Amino acid sequence: MALLVVGTLAYDSVETPSGKADDVLGGAATYCACAAAFFGPVRLVGVVGSDFRPEDRRLLEDKNIDLEGLSITEGQSFRWAGRYVGDLSVAETLGTQLNVLEGYEPHLPASYRDSRFVFLANSPPALQSLVVDQVDDDAFKVMDTMNLWIDTTWDDLLAILKRVDMLILNDQEARSITKEHSLIRAGRKLLDFGPDLVMVKKGEHGAFLWSKDFFYAIPAYPIEEVVDPTGAGDSFAGGVMGHLAQAGEVTPEQLRRAMIYGSVVASFNVEDFSLNRFRQIERHDIDARYQEFLGFIAHP
Amino acid sequence: MALLVVGTLAYDSVETPSGKADDVLGGAATYCACAAAFFGPVRLVGVVGSDFRPEDRRLLEDKNIDLEGLSITEGQSFRWAGRYVGDLSVAETLGTQLNVLEGYEPHLPASYRDSRFVFLANSPPALQSLVVDQVDDDAFKVMDTMNLWIDTTWDDLLAILKRVDMLILNDQEARSITKEHSLIRAGRKLLDFGPDLVMVKKGEHGAFLWSKDFFYAIPAYPIEEVVDPTGAGDSFAGGVMGHLAQAGEVTPEQLRRAMIYGSVVASFNVEDFSLNRFRQIERHDIDARYQEFLGFIAHP
Repeated sequence: MALLVVGTLAYDSVETPSGKADDVLGGAATYCACAAAFFGPVRLVGVVGSDFRPEDRRLLEDKNIDLEGLSITEGQSFRWAGRYVGDLSVAETLGTQLNVLEGYEPHLPASYRDSRFVFLANSPPALQSLVVDQVDDDAFKVMDTMNLWIDTTWDDLLAILKRVDMLILNDQEARSITKEHSLIRAGRKLLDFGPDLVMVKKGEHGAFLWSKDFFYAIPAYPIEEVVDPTGAGDSFAGGVMGHLAQAGEVTPEQLRRAMIYGSVVASFNVEDFSLNRFRQIERHDIDARYQEFLGFIAHP
Repeated sequence: MALLVVGTLAYDSVETPSGKADDVLGGAATYCACAAAFFGPVRLVGVVGSDFRPEDRRLLEDKNIDLEGLSITEGQSFRWAGRYVGDLSVAETLGTQLNVLEGYEPHLPASYRDSRFVFLANSPPALQSLVVDQVDDDAFKVMDTMNLWIDTTWDDLLAILKRVDMLILNDQEARSITKEHSLIRAGRKLLDFGPDLVMVKKGEHGAFLWSKDFFYAIPAYPIEEVVDPTGAGDSFAGGVMGHLAQAGEVTPEQLRRAMIYGSVVASFNVEDFSLNRFRQIERHDIDARYQEFLGFIAHP
């Protein structure tokens, strides 16, 4: 089934210990959509400026991403500049220019409204709610968020959390929402905020999944050298959602497979800047690493 | 088969966000031996002072730990004082008194020399070599180490690394020996120092195992509240070694089981100060948590 991804497309300028990249394609929805596109059809909703480069549009088209929901607005695309130092786990934001994001509201093309799997990439919670208004009640709706919304739009965040089926976020955000230092307590407590499923991304340390009925943990696929962690979390979410949409069902077994796919797809993404690795690899590369990963985590 | 554990017994004074404990039983060999004793017979070699309390000796005896190798020397037992702040991953040492450790050399009782499984808890590398001199060449020999020896007795450390079959150490020590920031590279590189197996403990983030032929990763057993992390790594090693000695063979399958047992035993240990949790639990508690853990890490 087609996966609907709603969120930002961006031009990023990124500096890491491995080097730098200026004005390269990025954005949460871009990473997620490209990651998910390895698994099946993806519909993308977001906005770019008139500066959006033809070769970047071509990348999305080559991945068979449906761009009917992509708005092109006079002006500059959203821009983010950041730097990673030390252990690469936290980005230092050097600058943000909202540009065409300012005042943008996501409107779904009529053909997208039957989407059964919906991913709301990190955006203002009020905009995420606007998307939920436009899809079927029984679509499987998943959201990410960030500290900015926890700090500035708490009530909106509480409202959207009641309307989604799964929350995907990082460990630090999980602690921040619940005010719990213990991640194990935080994860379980997040279930009380609304979602039936809570998936916590821990970067190089893997991921946890909580539901009322089960808990699941994976390490991360081991990567020798992380070149650029930008988009790792969104790629992880893309792998998770891409697999679930392709499977067409959300069972404990499929969720486990989805987490492993998420980790594998993210492991490719961090091996180069921007979406460069996603340009090079194909589905069989993901499947090969998936099989290898099963060996790493197998138990007798 | 009996496991031989050689290393320090101590009285610790520990402060954590959950509280404090003064002059309580501790020491790497103590934690390791008590953890391993859940699995089978353990022989202990180390030294304590004449202040060693009868109730602490009784704990070891109640666990069926063979104390023929325990030296009692006139004077005070080794003492360590430390404090954990923030995320509990690193102890700040407030004080160390070597006391009876000063000048101590481990000598194995004749009845210990046939030990097939040997764990050299963190000690000066020269003393670890002295133990290896006293056991069979084909015993399965495993060592831990710490930054102090990496910084001060590098050549001795290189020498003992060539004489053991497995190295168990934490992520920061692995990076420090290899001067590699990437843990994945560090783990593999450690194989070149001598051991056939390298097991890296990552605290709440689980553990990795490298050999020339395979790689294995587990998350940690999820603990809601860590009361005192002291001895977690030694308990982990005790679970690993206890299981291997009981299994009587070192195969990839047994090593995987051993890591899970290590994680489970360590998860109990951190739930209270000193060895308090080990006083309360029995083997069936470990097996119950082991089975639960298998569910957490199962994959389809």
